[in-house]
Amino acid sequence: MTDQDRERLRAYLRKGAGFVPQLSVDCVIFTYHEQQLKVLLVQPMGLGTWALPGGFVAQQQDVEAAAAETLRERTGLREVPLHLFGVFGKADRQTQDAQRAFFLAQGMEAHEFEWLMKRYVSIGYYALVQHVTEAADGSLLADEVMWQDVYSLPPLAFDHADMVNQALETLRTHIDQQVAQSRLLPEPFTMNALQTLYETILNRPLRRNNFQRRMLGLGTLERMEKLFTGGAHKAPFLYRFL
Amino acid sequence: MTDQDRERLRAYLRKGAGFVPQLSVDCVIFTYHEQQLKVLLVQPMGLGTWALPGGFVAQQQDVEAAAAETLRERTGLREVPLHLFGVFGKADRQTQDAQRAFFLAQGMEAHEFEWLMKRYVSIGYYALVQHVTEAADGSLLADEVMWQDVYSLPPLAFDHADMVNQALETLRTHIDQQVAQSRLLPEPFTMNALQTLYETILNRPLRRNNFQRRMLGLGTLERMEKLFTGGAHKAPFLYRFL
Repeated sequence: MTDQDRERLRAYLRKGAGFVPQLSVDCVIFTYHEQQLKVLLVQPMGLGTWALPGGFVAQQQDVEAAAAETLRERTGLREVPLHLFGVFGKADRQTQDAQRAFFLAQGMEAHEFEWLMKRYVSIGYYALVQHVTEAADGSLLADEVMWQDVYSLPPLAFDHADMVNQALETLRTHIDQQVAQSRLLPEPFTMNALQTLYETILNRPLRRNNFQRRMLGLGTLERMEKLFTGGAHKAPFLYRFL
Repeated sequence: MTDQDRERLRAYLRKGAGFVPQLSVDCVIFTYHEQQLKVLLVQPMGLGTWALPGGFVAQQQDVEAAAAETLRERTGLREVPLHLFGVFGKADRQTQDAQRAFFLAQGMEAHEFEWLMKRYVSIGYYALVQHVTEAADGSLLADEVMWQDVYSLPPLAFDHADMVNQALETLRTHIDQQVAQSRLLPEPFTMNALQTLYETILNRPLRRNNFQRRMLGLGTLERMEKLFTGGAHKAPFLYRFL
C-alpha cells in the first residue's frame, strides 16, 4: 500500500465518528445481461473477499439516502430505485478478524478502527437495473467492482450470500412489477425474450402458453402493429411495456 | 411519581449502556375484534402520548429477538410471528423535547438520559394476531396498553402514525396469507364472516360473488359438510382454513 493510500484509509476511518454507530446499509443490485441474472459485487480494500456494495449512515443523513450514496460512491450507479428487502441483525453476524489483521498490518492503531470492529446491524436494499458497464473506482474501499452471475457467486464476506438469496426471493415475489419498471429488455421485444428473462430470474422453465396468457392478463404489455422480422420462419408479435 | 417509580426509571436508563446505540424496534400488532381492525398502543411513562410498543436492542441480542422481547415485556404477547415491514431512518424523525422535559422534571440528570435523546433508526415489524384481552403492565415504561380501531387512532408519538399506515399497506399486500395463518375467525365460519373480515382490513366493500370465487380459488379453504344453522332463511356453507 502506498503512503497516499494509507492516508486515504486513515481519512476514511476518521469519518467513523460521524456515522450512526453499528448501523450499515448493503445493496443487492441485479441486472440482466447476456441472458444471465447478475449481481454487483465489490472487493473493498482489506476485506480480502468479494462483498456487496455497502456503507454507513452519517448522523445527519437519512438511511435510504445513505444507501443511494454508498452505491453511487462505490459503483458509479445513480438514481437507482432501492427497495428494502431485509434487516440483518444477528448478534454474531460478523467476524472482523481479517479486517483487524489488515488494519494492523497497515500500521493503523486499534483506536483508529475499533468503531468498525463492532457488530453492525445492516439494512438491505435491492434493485433491478439496466446493465451498465461503467463502475467508479474512485472509492478507496472498493478497489474492484464486477457483475457476477447470481447462480455462480464466489464466496462472499460475512452473511452477504444470505443477503443475495433473500433479495432474490423478494425480487421473485415482485417479479411482474420489477420487470415492468426496470426496462431490462430493449423495446420492442418478443414474448420469447420476455419468457427467457422470467425463467432466468425464477431459475426454472415456464410453459409457453401459460406464460403468454398470464403476461397478457397483467395488462402491462402493449402489442405492437409490426411483426418481428428477424428471420424466424413465423414472424412473432412484438411487445413493449405500457 | 413515587420514589420507587423513580428508581425503576433510573434502572431502565442505566440499561442504555448495554444497547446498540441509536437503534430501536417498533411493533404494529393488528387484531380483529368486534368487526374492527385494531392496533395495539401503549402509553410509555413520560412520553405523554400514545405510541407503538417498542424498545431497544441489547448488544448481545438479535434484532428480531429484541422485537419479540419488547412486545412480551410491554404487552404480555408471546410467540407472535413478526414480519419486517419497514425501516424508519429519517435524520429528523424524532424530537425528544417532551421526554427531555419529563426526565428533568423527575430529577434525572442529562448524562443519565442523553443516550435516549439521539436520532434513532427504527426497525418496524408487524403481525396479525388473535384478539387477547390480557396485557401486561409490568413494564415501567408502558403504563397503559389498549387496542384501538386502526381507522380512528389518537395522535401518536413521532412518526408512529406513518408506521401504522405502512404496516397496514403491507398487511393488505399479504392479506390472503396473513388471514389464513392468523386464525382470526372462530372455525368454522361463513363466507360472509370472512368477507366482512377482508372488507375491514381493506377498508372497502367487496362484491360477494367475486370474493367467494377468489377465496375458493386460493385452495386454502375447506368446505364443511354441515351447514350453518343460526336461523338464516337459507343455510350457508361453513368453512375452515386447511
